[in-house]
Amino acid sequence: MKKQFFGQVGKLLPAKVPEYVELHNHPWPGVLKKIKECNLQNYSIFLHGTIVFAYFEYTGTDYQKDMELMARDLETQEWWKHTKPCFESFAFSKNEEYYADMNQIFYLS
Amino acid sequence: MKKQFFGQVGKLLPAKVPEYVELHNHPWPGVLKKIKECNLQNYSIFLHGTIVFAYFEYTGTDYQKDMELMARDLETQEWWKHTKPCFESFAFSKNEEYYADMNQIFYLS
Repeated sequence: MKKQFFGQVGKLLPAKVPEYVELHNHPWPGVLKKIKECNLQNYSIFLHGTIVFAYFEYTGTDYQKDMELMARDLETQEWWKHTKPCFESFAFSKNEEYYADMNQIFYLS
Repeated sequence: MKKQFFGQVGKLLPAKVPEYVELHNHPWPGVLKKIKECNLQNYSIFLHGTIVFAYFEYTGTDYQKDMELMARDLETQEWWKHTKPCFESFAFSKNEEYYADMNQIFYLS
């Protein structure tokens, strides 16, 4: 399976930016473990003002299934109870409440 | 030298989105060559609406110097004459006319 590249954009609530940064300065080990189990790698989050951008690579064979596995993980669910309220909901799309998937339009290895 | 991770955000003019995508569907070989010479790798650009996000990794020893080398390349200058007018200038920062540098707040290998 070829590696797949993902970019996601989100908008934080101004008052919640410090909390979101602090959470990601001390990510929970169980959450990181689950990310790896779900075949995500080289995962970065970038911040500019209230805009957050997530970049990661997927090396598995069924992204949808792996994302469902992640969503069923209890520690990840607890983590999301902290991180998701930091977002301005539906900032970029009516369908995407937090991070919105982007389209890759260029790649150079 | 450790690998450095870069994220940059920009905003396109709505009418210019198709042109920006088309340019990146057919990037100029000389521009790609110069990017590699300047020690950038694993370079992706993502689009969502008018928001663009660029991700790349820097493997050299002097980022500022390499960026100056890139800026002096004639073909790259010509390429930028096509790409830069696609942006809404100063959309995210008074100091950054096109892509604005972001801060990496999380990394998981």
